[in-house]
This record gives sequence, C-alpha cells and structure tokens, in this order.
Amino acid sequence: MKNSLDTAANIHVQNTAPGRTDIAPARPAGAVYLGGFRAAPLETVRLAIVGLGERCTVLLEQLKSIPHAEVVGLCDLSLPALAAAAQECGPRENASSLQLFSGPQGYERMLDEAHPDAVVICTTWATHAAMAVTAMEHGVHALVEVPLGLTLDELWQVVDTAERTQKHCMMLENCCYGRDELMFLNMVRQGLIGDLLHGEAAYIHDLRERQLTAGSDWHFAHLAARNGNLYPTHGLGPLAQYMNLARTDDTFDRIVSFSSPALGRAAHAERNLPPDHPWNETDIKCGDINTSIIKTRLGRTILVQWDETSPRPYDRRNLIQGTEGTLAGFPTRIAGAGLNDGSEWVQGDEAISPLRERYEHPLWRRLGEAAEATDSRGGMNYLLLARIVECLRAGEPLDQNVYEGAFWSAVAPLSEKSVNEGGMPQLFPDFTRGDWRRTAPLGVVE
Amino acid sequence: MKNSLDTAANIHVQNTAPGRTDIAPARPAGAVYLGGFRAAPLETVRLAIVGLGERCTVLLEQLKSIPHAEVVGLCDLSLPALAAAAQECGPRENASSLQLFSGPQGYERMLDEAHPDAVVICTTWATHAAMAVTAMEHGVHALVEVPLGLTLDELWQVVDTAERTQKHCMMLENCCYGRDELMFLNMVRQGLIGDLLHGEAAYIHDLRERQLTAGSDWHFAHLAARNGNLYPTHGLGPLAQYMNLARTDDTFDRIVSFSSPALGRAAHAERNLPPDHPWNETDIKCGDINTSIIKTRLGRTILVQWDETSPRPYDRRNLIQGTEGTLAGFPTRIAGAGLNDGSEWVQGDEAISPLRERYEHPLWRRLGEAAEATDSRGGMNYLLLARIVECLRAGEPLDQNVYEGAFWSAVAPLSEKSVNEGGMPQLFPDFTRGDWRRTAPLGVVE
Repeated sequence: MKNSLDTAANIHVQNTAPGRTDIAPARPAGAVYLGGFRAAPLETVRLAIVGLGERCTVLLEQLKSIPHAEVVGLCDLSLPALAAAAQECGPRENASSLQLFSGPQGYERMLDEAHPDAVVICTTWATHAAMAVTAMEHGVHALVEVPLGLTLDELWQVVDTAERTQKHCMMLENCCYGRDELMFLNMVRQGLIGDLLHGEAAYIHDLRERQLTAGSDWHFAHLAARNGNLYPTHGLGPLAQYMNLARTDDTFDRIVSFSSPALGRAAHAERNLPPDHPWNETDIKCGDINTSIIKTRLGRTILVQWDETSPRPYDRRNLIQGTEGTLAGFPTRIAGAGLNDGSEWVQGDEAISPLRERYEHPLWRRLGEAAEATDSRGGMNYLLLARIVECLRAGEPLDQNVYEGAFWSAVAPLSEKSVNEGGMPQLFPDFTRGDWRRTAPLGVVE
Repeated sequence: MKNSLDTAANIHVQNTAPGRTDIAPARPAGAVYLGGFRAAPLETVRLAIVGLGERCTVLLEQLKSIPHAEVVGLCDLSLPALAAAAQECGPRENASSLQLFSGPQGYERMLDEAHPDAVVICTTWATHAAMAVTAMEHGVHALVEVPLGLTLDELWQVVDTAERTQKHCMMLENCCYGRDELMFLNMVRQGLIGDLLHGEAAYIHDLRERQLTAGSDWHFAHLAARNGNLYPTHGLGPLAQYMNLARTDDTFDRIVSFSSPALGRAAHAERNLPPDHPWNETDIKCGDINTSIIKTRLGRTILVQWDETSPRPYDRRNLIQGTEGTLAGFPTRIAGAGLNDGSEWVQGDEAISPLRERYEHPLWRRLGEAAEATDSRGGMNYLLLARIVECLRAGEPLDQNVYEGAFWSAVAPLSEKSVNEGGMPQLFPDFTRGDWRRTAPLGVVE
C-alpha cells in the first residue's frame, strides 16, 4: 500500500504541475505516423499475457473460442495466479507452445523467449505505459488494458515508441464493441441523426465492494492521491468514434473538469470496515463524482462523468445528439432519427427490436451470436479480441490506433489539472501532430 | 425585429465584457438585507399584471381559483391583448375593481392608480429587471417571470432596489412547485440521500415551432445575438433549493460553460420556412445545446443544460445525488435512499406510488388536488401563486427571495462570458454580500 501511495502521489504531482499541454513536441527522426498503420499479415496470432488478474481471466475465456489465436506466454509475479491462468489455457493449448514466466525479469524474458506477435497488458495502471514501451522495443505489438498511460509524458512515450518501432499499440477499450455502441455507430454513419452536436459519456459503477477485495490496494492509492476523472475511456471511446475524433473530421480541443466532494467512500468505510482498515486510515482525495466537458475542434461538446463510489445504477450514458435526433443508452432510447419527431423516446425491447433489425452493426450480425454465447458481459470482450485477431491476420489497421488510446486516456491527467486549478480549461496535446486530418474514419466493418 | 436584435446584441456586449464578477459592491446606505424578509400581512392580495401574453393567460387561469387574490389592474401595449385578458378576468372580478392600462405610461399609471400590492411581470426578458425596479420604487412588490434580469448589472439593480425599498421581489420559478421537485425536497431534507454531492438540471424543450408563432421575434433575437445558457432557471431552481444554496449551508461559487455548434435552427428554417424569413436571413449565434457546470462553495457540482432547438424529448433532469442515494426525474427514478442498495432504479407509477404515500410534500398533500384540477401543466403554476398569496396574507417570507432569483438568473450572463472565453471559469457575484450564511433554508412548508 505504501509503494502504491507513493506511485499515485507522484502521478498526482506530474499531472498538476504547471506547464502548457497544447504543444506537440517535434516528431523524432525516423518516426512514422501510424494513423492507418498495417503490419505484415499473420497466419496465427501468437499472444502473450502479462498481469493474470480478474481481467485476464475474462480475456482468456474469450480467447478459447477465437480461432487462429494462440496463447504462447503468461507472466505474473504471483505463482498461484500463473498456475491458475495456465490451467485456464490448458484444455485448448498445446502444452509445448505455452511458456510461463515470473520473477523480476519475467516480462522481458517472455517477450524474447515466447516469441509472441502481441502482448496483452492487464497489469495495474501505473505499469501500462512502461510495459507497452518495452513490448514494442522488443518487436512485439502492445495491446493495453485501459488506460494507456497515466500522465501526458507517459502517453507521449507510448506514441513515440510506436512510431519509432512501427508496432501496433492498441488500448483495449472493449465498450466500443458493445452491441448498442456498434449500432449507434452504424446509425450515425448513415446520417440518421444529422450533424453531430453533443455527446454524453460516463462510467458510473458502484465498485466499492469489488475494490475491497484482495489485490485492489493499488487502485485505492489512486483515489487517495489523485482527483479528477481517473477512468474516462469506457464511456468516451464510443463517443469519440461516433464523432470521428482524431480522424479527418474533428479532434479533441480542450476540457474543463470539476469533482464533487469526496465523502461516500469514507462514509462506507466508517460504517462497514474496521478502524484500522486503510480506507479508514487514509484521507481520500478523489471526489465521488467527476463531471467534465470536452470541447472539440468543431465546437461539439462531450460530457464525461465518472463515479465508482456512489450507490447509483450502472450507467455509461452513451448519448449522441445531432440536429436530427438523439441516440442514448441505459436504457437504450432513440428520438428523432427519422423514426419520430423527437418528442418521445422510442424505447423498450419491443419498440427497439425493429430498429435492431434495420440498423444492427454488420460486425454484430456476423459475430454477435458467438460473442453472446462466450461472453457473459454481453459480447464486447469477444468482439474486441476477435477483431484484433482478424485484423492482425489480414494485415489490416486495428480498429483503435495508438493516438486514440492516448487522447482518450489523456482525459485523466487533463481533468486532474483542471480540477486542481478550479476548473481552468486544459488544452489536449495533439498526439497526431496534425496528422489526424489525414487519418481515415473507422469504417462500419463488415 | 431590428430593435429586438439591437437590444439582444447590447446584452451580449455587456455580458462578455472583461471585468471581475467576484466582487460585491458595498451595500448602499439605508439598504437592508432581505434574506428572510416579511412584509406587513394583507387581508386580500391585490394583483396587477403587465404583459398579457401566453404566460399571463396561464396565470390568470390559476388566479380564478385562488381565494383572497384579486386582479385589480392589467396592462399591455396591445389593446386586443388587454381586451382578451380583461374578458378572462370578467366572470370573477368585480368590474369596478379591475382597471386597464395601455400606452407608454400605462405601466407606471397602473402602479399608481390601481393600488396593487404586487405586480406580476410577464413581459419580454429585456424589460423584466427595469419593470421590477419601477414597481418597487412605486411601493409595489414585484413578482417577475424568469429570468429576473439579463445582465449582472441588472441583477444588482434589482437586488439593491429591493433592499432600499424593502419590497418583495420574487422570480416566479414555477418548477420549484412541481410534484416531484417538492417530494425530492422533502426527501432530501429528511436525509434520505445522505450528504449532497452533485445535481443535474436542464431545460431541454424543443420549442422551434412555438417560437415561430407571432410575437416571438424578441426571443429569436436573443438566440441570434447571444451564446450561452439563456434560460437556466427551470432546472436549476429546484436543485438550488435541495442544496440550500444561498441559505446557510452553501452558495454559488463558479461556473464553466460550453455551447455546441448552432446548426439545428438554421437547418429547420431552411427546410420549413421561406428564404426571406428572419430565421433564414439571420445568423444564429447561440449553440443548440449548452452544457455548464456550477461549482458550489462546498465543492458540490451542478450540471446545467439548455436546448430549445433539438428534436429531443422534454427533460429537466432534476437529478440530486448524495452519499446514500440519487433522486432523478424524466422519468421519476430513485436509487438507494434507504429503498435499495442503489444498484437499480425504483421507477414506474406502481413502484413509485408507495414512496409518494410516504414522502409526498405536505404542500402537495394540502393543495395538490386543487392544483391538478386547475392547472393543466401538473399544478405547479397554481401552487406557485397560491403560496405567494398565502405568504403575503400571513406576512411570511416568500419561498424564493430576491437573491435566489439573482443567482439563478446570473447563470445566463456568466455562461455567456465563459462560452465567449473558451470555457474559462466565471465567479458568481455574491448578491447577498455574505449574508447567505444567516439566511434560513427554505422549510418543508405544511
């Protein structure tokens, strides 16, 4: 806990230090822009995984059902976690192709010795960027759990390393593969809601109990030391795709952010936990609910919220509003969009069903059944991995490029800075160095 | 239209001029703070009304059913409007007690000659503050339709005049008397959602068609010349009451604001109106949807949105979140608050009904039936007027004091300034000059 607190406090200091964020450093010599990057096609995708916690279990479960994906390496500091994950792989994998790694050098040894094409990084937040950099420097594509990095410096390092090494670096924003998110993307691309004006994204998820389980100390350290929207990408990713942010049409301009008081977690701890529990012994800095507004270059607005503390129903908002209609989630609702005059929501399974018939995303039509059969979380994790595997096999660009991972993740440090400065607007760095204008929008993949 | 545009453009210039807004000028000699102001009790409340448009019709309809209220004067520049309103009053009023006024001096003559106790000001936005000032200077309480004024200067003039003349000046924020708003106030006061953290307010109401009717030119002029949240009080008023803003506990600190692009109204006009229609001939400055965040002195956050242009269902949000639960509107939903663990919304008439039994506001229990019978808009206009009449008769403070009207209305000019400055935080002036600390919270009136 002590080390975690130090790490998180150090991130806080970096993210609230004075300094301009709007300047993109010059692209280093030899670096090449990766907006539509394609790597050489692969027959089989050899995957390694580092960080064998809860998230890894979910991904391993999916990988079993995805053809042409092979898990060739697993790495964790914990031997029991390593054994459990190896067992999870057991029934499918050829024992001779799976190697296990541990110890301080385990990760680099895995990159060198297991010869993976890509490594999935499921470790704690503070190690994501460094591990991605290491992977690419070892010639391995990096697939990084959210967020891609915690500070603007880290995000620049990831971008620069990807450009220098010419490796994929994709943040694994699974919510971009939600059934509704995919359908909304399809509807937006068909022009059903006209010109886009405004979006709303959130990650409202009461995780207090889950964050009390063993191994969650590192997470609490971030709440104790930092204040902002520390986990913005689940809601924001799909919105950014609807708006083609950092892809030809528009990009991120600035953000303002306010956090509420930090009261709920301490109240929960006082009621439910022993007096000497870390939640009762540590002042919590992070406000219970953060509310931010992003302004895009075209002047569109995106509300982004985050709350893992309050007793509220799960909500990612997923609202996209245009001149001709609005699509929204939680629950799924549609107004205007050629369906009605906008004065009432079309909602409920029965009313939405004909819309799904008509506007279901082709990817869902193709793989949705397999995804739902495998993935108890609605299919998004399956589709995420299936798409990565098929893109790498075909030598196609991945659905999310490294710049999107950096922009979406930058909301955390920029919101911290805005909160720390009483709501002052913070400019996004342009991780594409102007090249977003020549980056094709994500298509509605078949 | 030309005059309206000039007026609105002038307001825009005032509201985006440089200058600090956080300084309260010293209270003028002889002025007295009015936080809990009581006037001498009245037997019958003699009311005059100026501005006999659509809003006035709604209020006159209610007044017929409210005992001890007498309409003694009506004033409008339009003689047909005057005749129609007089006829509306006819069946009930003693003909000898009702006087009609018109012409340039009609308003002041009405204040002097009809001897009203209070005047209801239902004119266009740009005249609200000046008419309120005139009323109070003539010894008449001012009851002012939203907003109370359009610039910070106007709002200070209203506050200073009220303090100097010792007259009531209440902004008629009817949404504070909505059934759910009253119930939520009651629940919040009972501590059901714990410590308050965050609120969400909105006025999302597609008024494009209504704003095309005759006599709406003045409103369009504001959209053409200004950019911000020009109509914030319907959603914000109830939130401010839940949080006791400007009343002992907490007050307004700062606001940030962004508007979306302004596209929807022009698109609507191009599709539906002749090329020489003002909507097609005038550039519209005001973004279709404005999103602002207010930060309070205690650090709570309030999201405030406004959209009268987009094809979206009506929504005031009406969300108040505390450490122990969240209450929300549109549709009415409750989570936590001692009812469940917060993971699901309690919603739907059947589920909400027992909660209404238990937490219905006493005012609604007493007058709700009469209110619903008279007021096709759910009862809020009836309750607003009934409360004013009973408070004036009892010599009690009105439910909303002049400072609340000023704070709530100040969101418009402050949001304009923030939008104009790329989202820079704007400090609220303290209209109470520090006296909010000694102003009792609004009670749950029986």
